[in-house]
Amino acid sequence: MKVHQELIQLRTRGHGSMHDLTPAVAEVVQRSGIRQGTVTVFVIGSTAAVGTIEFEPGLQEDLPRALDRLFPPGQDYAHHQTWHDDNGHSHLQATLLGPSLVVPVEEGRLVLGTWQQVFLVECDTRPRSRRVHLTVQGEP
Amino acid sequence: MKVHQELIQLRTRGHGSMHDLTPAVAEVVQRSGIRQGTVTVFVIGSTAAVGTIEFEPGLQEDLPRALDRLFPPGQDYAHHQTWHDDNGHSHLQATLLGPSLVVPVEEGRLVLGTWQQVFLVECDTRPRSRRVHLTVQGEP
Amino acid sequence: MKVHQELIQLRTRGHGSMHDLTPAVAEVVQRSGIRQGTVTVFVIGSTAAVGTIEFEPGLQEDLPRALDRLFPPGQDYAHHQTWHDDNGHSHLQATLLGPSLVVPVEEGRLVLGTWQQVFLVECDTRPRSRRVHLTVQGEP
Repeated sequence: MKVHQELIQLRTRGHGSMHDLTPAVAEVVQRSGIRQGTVTVFVIGSTAAVGTIEFEPGLQEDLPRALDRLFPPGQDYAHHQTWHDDNGHSHLQATLLGPSLVVPVEEGRLVLGTWQQVFLVECDTRPRSRRVHLTVQGEP
Repeated sequence: MKVHQELIQLRTRGHGSMHDLTPAVAEVVQRSGIRQGTVTVFVIGSTAAVGTIEFEPGLQEDLPRALDRLFPPGQDYAHHQTWHDDNGHSHLQATLLGPSLVVPVEEGRLVLGTWQQVFLVECDTRPRSRRVHLTVQGEP
Repeated sequence: MKVHQELIQLRTRGHGSMHDLTPAVAEVVQRSGIRQGTVTVFVIGSTAAVGTIEFEPGLQEDLPRALDRLFPPGQDYAHHQTWHDDNGHSHLQATLLGPSLVVPVEEGRLVLGTWQQVFLVECDTRPRSRRVHLTVQGEP
């Protein structure tokens, strides 16, 4: 067994912007030479999250809107008192959805459904540069 | 270290049906011959999710009901406009709960609490055939 | 590649108490001698959860408060009828946030943002002794 690690970098478009990471993750898996195992997708930072979704335009609206309904922007979060900040909801949204996702790799390919893609969602209130760390572990 | 991969297949009973995967996952771990490591449980598809819960009849009602309260069926989701579909809530529920779970394996057994089981919840609006992919990684 | 496993034990302060696990996890990673790979953080039991967050006093109030808003204590959960228990909300909060988290390890260090820590949140209604299981996997 072996380990292969790489960073994906991307620029988000601000609060609620969604990004399909599937092609970049698949490319790193291919480059790793690992054919059986897993890839751990981990977003560095506390105001973005990763997961899987059917990556179509409708759900790219629905998910951020639902997150804003569960954790509304502009509320009186205690976080704002600590830093005189405005992104308490961003932190809660990101924590709930989570920073890490593990996807199986079989015969060198990601094991995903046809309508299941790996995404990143920006929960912060402005466009950000994001680093997503990938660890492929398994057998060549 | 080595890798062992298998698929579990099951038939769900429709929206909100919950399934205890623990015995099947434990069996695959045993068959793998791996005694120290992890098992990655990953549901293929974008309208079901996995996690851990005390698998008793009350919570099997409470969890789907709570998910329907957070992401109500029948709302005006943008997803419905893309596909003339009716399961926008199914996608959001599945994405929030997540498709992947990693459980430690020690001395050949799943490391779980006494009242902690591995489950799958069907979030789609009809019974589905589900494939759950397992990757056991570790030392014999 | 190799595997290293350890338990962290801690005492929580009751419902909504949050605990920064980062120093303890980093110490186990260092002791493992593994420099490239992942650490799987898994809380044993069905009424606590782990994740990442900016571990500052404001968010330590905001997260438990938000979880109580999503899954309110004292409601008529079916779980209460099974066990004559009062912690249905604890189970749902813990299941949604999740028991497992995988963090990358590079050059012997956790790959985390500057304001991103590994935490445990107690969702149960009373102080508990908690065991968090760590599995470090990778190359020395």
